[in-house]
Amino acid sequence: VSASAADELWERLVRGERAALARAITAAESSRDDHRALASELVRRAARSAAVQRAWRIGVTGPPGVGKSTLLDTLSARLIELGHRPAILAIDPSSRSSGGSLLGDQARMSQLLGNDGAFVRPSPTRGHLGGAAASTYETALLCAAAGYAPVLIETVGVGQSEVEVSYLADLTLLLLQPGAGDELQGIKRGVLEYADVVAVAQADGARRSLAEETRDRFEQALSLSRGGNAPNVLLVSSLEKSGIDELWQRMEAELAARVQAGTFTSQRRERDARSFRPRLLLELERVFLANSERQSALQSAEDALTTGELTLPEALEHVLAQWTLRG
Amino acid sequence: VSASAADELWERLVRGERAALARAITAAESSRDDHRALASELVRRAARSAAVQRAWRIGVTGPPGVGKSTLLDTLSARLIELGHRPAILAIDPSSRSSGGSLLGDQARMSQLLGNDGAFVRPSPTRGHLGGAAASTYETALLCAAAGYAPVLIETVGVGQSEVEVSYLADLTLLLLQPGAGDELQGIKRGVLEYADVVAVAQADGARRSLAEETRDRFEQALSLSRGGNAPNVLLVSSLEKSGIDELWQRMEAELAARVQAGTFTSQRRERDARSFRPRLLLELERVFLANSERQSALQSAEDALTTGELTLPEALEHVLAQWTLRG
Repeated sequence: VSASAADELWERLVRGERAALARAITAAESSRDDHRALASELVRRAARSAAVQRAWRIGVTGPPGVGKSTLLDTLSARLIELGHRPAILAIDPSSRSSGGSLLGDQARMSQLLGNDGAFVRPSPTRGHLGGAAASTYETALLCAAAGYAPVLIETVGVGQSEVEVSYLADLTLLLLQPGAGDELQGIKRGVLEYADVVAVAQADGARRSLAEETRDRFEQALSLSRGGNAPNVLLVSSLEKSGIDELWQRMEAELAARVQAGTFTSQRRERDARSFRPRLLLELERVFLANSERQSALQSAEDALTTGELTLPEALEHVLAQWTLRG
Repeated sequence: VSASAADELWERLVRGERAALARAITAAESSRDDHRALASELVRRAARSAAVQRAWRIGVTGPPGVGKSTLLDTLSARLIELGHRPAILAIDPSSRSSGGSLLGDQARMSQLLGNDGAFVRPSPTRGHLGGAAASTYETALLCAAAGYAPVLIETVGVGQSEVEVSYLADLTLLLLQPGAGDELQGIKRGVLEYADVVAVAQADGARRSLAEETRDRFEQALSLSRGGNAPNVLLVSSLEKSGIDELWQRMEAELAARVQAGTFTSQRRERDARSFRPRLLLELERVFLANSERQSALQSAEDALTTGELTLPEALEHVLAQWTLRG
């Protein structure tokens, strides 16, 4: 990458040019060497910028179908009215194969389409989790550098993604579905332990009383496991647009208090330090997989494990040998 | 490694020579290149051996202090009486810094010391989780190849280790402490979802009724989240040696049913395939960290993140550059 190309894109990006931001994000999601080099340079600058250091990053997690996209749509529309310029991102490890992400993006578009006050970026369709999470972190920084804040990051409740969103986010919102019981299975339980704000979604119409029951049940569970520090549980409805202001006020109060106390930055730094080794592993994975031969070797190895043709040590050796050859 | 050195050690190992097994495990835990090459060769052979394909691997998890070591000690003594030759391993990512592991090992020694019918291997003191889990997998295979079965693998309830034991184990036993509530925090909640057998430990003397209460509470929680498939919860006491036979019968029945149905091997293969990518990442980490300069670079990077001297993108670049230099 020529320094001047990065310089020029950076200048346009910090002026808030949407095309420059889109181009930077495309580079961050790319596996082409020149794109990655450009993205790395921009992300390094972004991480040092005052705009990024000020911008709140809010993660939203919860079981599939709870209505995260719709809520983010509604919340973002309200944030624009309040004078904010939110960015809406998604970590969706399944987006390559499932239609869920597309549907979510369409729903979002309904209110935010053509609105210059927000920046919406669907999940990268990288297909492997590590890459998606790593480039979402970079995208979050680039959006904040371009003047978008808060950065709202939606995660699909699959596997590790909830944990990874907690690496990226200053604050995590957990959305619950009315009628707990069965959905408990969908929520990775560790999430209950670190969620800063918890809300039952779809608390409207006939579902309202079920939502209230769920709120009471989770308040009990939270106070059991977290004692005096347990957050009380809110009720929100994207349909009736109820509870949205309370939700934002709760998040804003929590984050503003940390800024005031001087702990916002130190907590972010500690989170960066704590997540460094897993992040490094994700980077190693990304570098490792930025090679189509290695990717197909991985897939064949998994197939061979399933049939019993290869044992686990053989499969590991087989794939790692490709690294040594091409490292 | 000369092929003949591996051949000779392998011959002695499959004859069940304890010294050969100990030497193979030491090689597996080592970061020296020649040791690693020897261990890899032996582990590859082990993975193909009929003894390993037959040997049950049982993971034991639960909150710190629940008495996993003591229970494994008691259970192993009983297994020896029944004609088995159990191996007892531990994944303890904290063993470098805490004294917990040492204490556990001493407790175990009380019944198994000098007993040739069991093979006890304390946790490797590698210090980083990935290495410990990876070499525990190799150790499990080596023990089984040397004729020890079942292979009992204890995990300390910290961070990811419960999840990792589920990669290694055909069956997972979750031990609970009498008086749930507070301990809920200690259990990684995902564990409740995949535990095959659940037991309340220390169900003796004055704690018996509290243990019964805990059993009832967890049976309710399990049936809430797992419905008809929820295991009922056993009561065990290492002190009074009660419930030990029932516990073993439960585990044996579950595993024997899978063998009979022909699903034991296919489940293990599917587990291998599912855990392949995270295992590959652990291997990448191990290869990456098998270098003291990179290890100290990692530590400095974490320190610099905490003080704010480096940003996360800078720290990642800094450490990854060391890989490129030495890859």
